[in-house]
Amino acid sequence: MAKDRPKRPRAETPKGFRDYFGAEVRARAAMLARITEVYHAWGFEPLETSAVETVEALGKFLPDVDRPNQGVFAWQDEDDTWLALRYDLTAPLARVYAQHRAALPIPYRPYQVGPVWRDEKPGPGRFRQFYQCDADIVGAATVAADAEICAMLGEALEAAGIARGDYRIRVNNRKILDGVLETAGLYNGNDPEKYRKERGIVLRAIDKFDRVGEDGVRALLGAGRRDDSGDFTAGANLSEEQIARVLAFFSASSTKNIYDQDGVIDTVASGGILHTDQTFNLLSTLIETSLIGVSGLQEVRDMLALVGDSGVVFDTSVVRGLGYYTGPVFEAELTFEVLDDAGRPRQFGSVAGGGRYDDLVKRFTGETVPATGISVGVDRLLAALGEKGRLTARQPKLVVVTVMDRERMADYQKMAAELRHDLRDISVRAEVYLGGGGMGRQLKYADQRGAAIAVIQGADEHARDAVQLKDLALGARLAAEIETHEAWRAQPAQVEVPRGRLVAEVRAMLAR
Amino acid sequence: MAKDRPKRPRAETPKGFRDYFGAEVRARAAMLARITEVYHAWGFEPLETSAVETVEALGKFLPDVDRPNQGVFAWQDEDDTWLALRYDLTAPLARVYAQHRAALPIPYRPYQVGPVWRDEKPGPGRFRQFYQCDADIVGAATVAADAEICAMLGEALEAAGIARGDYRIRVNNRKILDGVLETAGLYNGNDPEKYRKERGIVLRAIDKFDRVGEDGVRALLGAGRRDDSGDFTAGANLSEEQIARVLAFFSASSTKNIYDQDGVIDTVASGGILHTDQTFNLLSTLIETSLIGVSGLQEVRDMLALVGDSGVVFDTSVVRGLGYYTGPVFEAELTFEVLDDAGRPRQFGSVAGGGRYDDLVKRFTGETVPATGISVGVDRLLAALGEKGRLTARQPKLVVVTVMDRERMADYQKMAAELRHDLRDISVRAEVYLGGGGMGRQLKYADQRGAAIAVIQGADEHARDAVQLKDLALGARLAAEIETHEAWRAQPAQVEVPRGRLVAEVRAMLAR
Repeated sequence: MAKDRPKRPRAETPKGFRDYFGAEVRARAAMLARITEVYHAWGFEPLETSAVETVEALGKFLPDVDRPNQGVFAWQDEDDTWLALRYDLTAPLARVYAQHRAALPIPYRPYQVGPVWRDEKPGPGRFRQFYQCDADIVGAATVAADAEICAMLGEALEAAGIARGDYRIRVNNRKILDGVLETAGLYNGNDPEKYRKERGIVLRAIDKFDRVGEDGVRALLGAGRRDDSGDFTAGANLSEEQIARVLAFFSASSTKNIYDQDGVIDTVASGGILHTDQTFNLLSTLIETSLIGVSGLQEVRDMLALVGDSGVVFDTSVVRGLGYYTGPVFEAELTFEVLDDAGRPRQFGSVAGGGRYDDLVKRFTGETVPATGISVGVDRLLAALGEKGRLTARQPKLVVVTVMDRERMADYQKMAAELRHDLRDISVRAEVYLGGGGMGRQLKYADQRGAAIAVIQGADEHARDAVQLKDLALGARLAAEIETHEAWRAQPAQVEVPRGRLVAEVRAMLAR
Repeated sequence: MAKDRPKRPRAETPKGFRDYFGAEVRARAAMLARITEVYHAWGFEPLETSAVETVEALGKFLPDVDRPNQGVFAWQDEDDTWLALRYDLTAPLARVYAQHRAALPIPYRPYQVGPVWRDEKPGPGRFRQFYQCDADIVGAATVAADAEICAMLGEALEAAGIARGDYRIRVNNRKILDGVLETAGLYNGNDPEKYRKERGIVLRAIDKFDRVGEDGVRALLGAGRRDDSGDFTAGANLSEEQIARVLAFFSASSTKNIYDQDGVIDTVASGGILHTDQTFNLLSTLIETSLIGVSGLQEVRDMLALVGDSGVVFDTSVVRGLGYYTGPVFEAELTFEVLDDAGRPRQFGSVAGGGRYDDLVKRFTGETVPATGISVGVDRLLAALGEKGRLTARQPKLVVVTVMDRERMADYQKMAAELRHDLRDISVRAEVYLGGGGMGRQLKYADQRGAAIAVIQGADEHARDAVQLKDLALGARLAAEIETHEAWRAQPAQVEVPRGRLVAEVRAMLAR
């Protein structure tokens, strides 16, 4: 702030960050209220964790680690502890449960809403701060908990405004993939840490199918992939036969198209054949006698039996990118079509994801604590509701009291207070114009604000103990052209009423 | 996650951070909904800024700068830009307005709710992440805007549950102090930057009165102050006469006790004499012919005339610690008494503060943009409501469906779904028990969760197509003692009803 400071600060959010305004904030709050009301009705309790965690508590589970500090925003505290902004709501929940477990019920059923931060490359529609809305069950070992999470997710999406039939909850189980990898020589039940790195690359490769396509996945499973910008991502170095097994798993019950060696769409992957005996048979062949694979298949069967016909489908192409999932994984996708930037129709895609993460609390306590949960991508879902025209945050009607005589501010404030108070039953909002300028500028302001009515009392009206009411919806087109109070009075969208009738006449005008 | 990792991460929030659970999260959300409903009714629109800003955009306005990076959490981005977590909601608003002003109405009336972060020494009840709830008017130059902010703040406090009479909104004006300092030779209207540092120390010294007392303030105005821990804070190096003038200003209309040279309470500071002619006369004497001082006094007179008898009082001991205020400053304090840690009664104290900051947008644009606003300390106000027993977040009634036969999870889930759906009109929550263990553990869980009713259906009841309903409020005392289903059935707080009557009987039981 020194007088001779050479340059001004730039008025910009940091790269990849944004602000949210007015209607969008209210629409999001309304959507989240509907979703969390469902969570709450299902017996979940709110939790809000600190946004800042120690780096050691967060752990390193983010995929796409092309940044320092593993994709998180981190800095050193005074005592040299590394602190970081949370990158999701699940890792902090594991810390919370380990820290407070003596006081928490078992199972513990929290729900959370809040921003998370990731130090990723910003891009169009890709921000470094975004909202998540999670529900988790900690301390429940059976797939009944996973099934409940999926069923509740469906109900939450419907409460938010997504019709049944417009969404699909795709479930899979990482244990099946582990079984496939066991038969391929990449998993050893007696030493699960062996080949963990390779299996991580396999997971992330499958998870990237939508972005990199089949060829990209093949490259990532093999020697690695160089993207358009020239960046190279190391591959899992699998053999051709191992790659074939992974892709056979991927396409066993997938909504994605996988081509066989001859470039023909694999019939199994045609989309019509989901969680049928045929799929289970194929997977049984792939996992052979792998115990973990058999267990995973059984868990999927049990989950599907529990959820019934609630929009949940088995889809082996779902694996999720995060490193901490141990069994069932789920993803909710919206199936209606929107137009992409090039005007081509495409499915809206994923709006929520989750799964079971039985080892995440164990990191802290040494004891296995089973846990499962779901995370709704709030901004994505809000965008989807926007596409469907289902953003219903009601805009209560606004009245702007204009200021013709600055000496009588107290009178104008009294009008606004009366309107707010006496029309509270119909959620009327009222404000006095506090800026500078004459009638034209004040009406322009009221118009820009989307006000329904402007109240005007100049010296003449004051002498008659009256006010003018301008119906702005009617008069919006003319407002910009009119500069003087006198010209304004000639317009049809206005009416003069006694001051004592102000509230009653505004009520009547808004009811029209 | 390597198998041979030598030690586990500690399950702890970083120092000075905390988590919020269940009822507290809901109580805060309910309180904020009531406050923001008032803001909205007054014509304010929601705004949510990025939590992360560039350090240069935030500026350096925090008082008590005893930390690196001026008390903010900061780190360097990939491109070497310094980023930081916002320390309040006002500095980001100035950035937002400068960035988006072409699209925003003038005046712009945003309200904001969100966490802010300060890298301060943590202490009891002093956290490094806390919530604020702000309302601001940008682009309104007159004190009508400041008066409106103060009047609305009173209404918001009352909506939150603070009765009129239990709060006081203390207003002052920094221009008066500048006037006093001008006659003391520490302000020059032609060169406002001169002595800015000294005036900053004076402001922070006055702001610390409650913590350091009169002697502490005298020391800070003079040669400096060494606190109990041995830390030294540099003083403003004012002369005795200058110090006397500052203290005369402070006590001209203060609710704090100031002692004169002989150790006698200054009569003017006795508390009974607020915004009277006597106070204005005394201040007129102190500011002599200072133009800025006269202007400040007039602004206070105008504000007081506009707010009427709405709990707003003139109090020269209010200056606010933040560096960016330029004129009117306000502080809402709760006047009811609570017991401090030592069991002594004390006033609850400040829960909100704000003021006018006409130069904050100018930092970015070079043009003066008048602005004023208020920030509610959400955690403090929530604590106050707790003290007053006015936390009213209703806990809808919870029903826990116990699991006697794991093969029939789908049946139990159907019961919970029926209860949720058919009793939605009375906000019933229902969940199936998903943990392990027998009846004793399940009832203990239901008890810990505060459930109203437990539903039980073992093989016997299933054969009879019936369910048992346990009234947990009635039976809570006994629950811990009972281990078997049979013993439980002997208790009086249970009733068997036909399965088809489940919903109706739960409704009746909850209505009792």
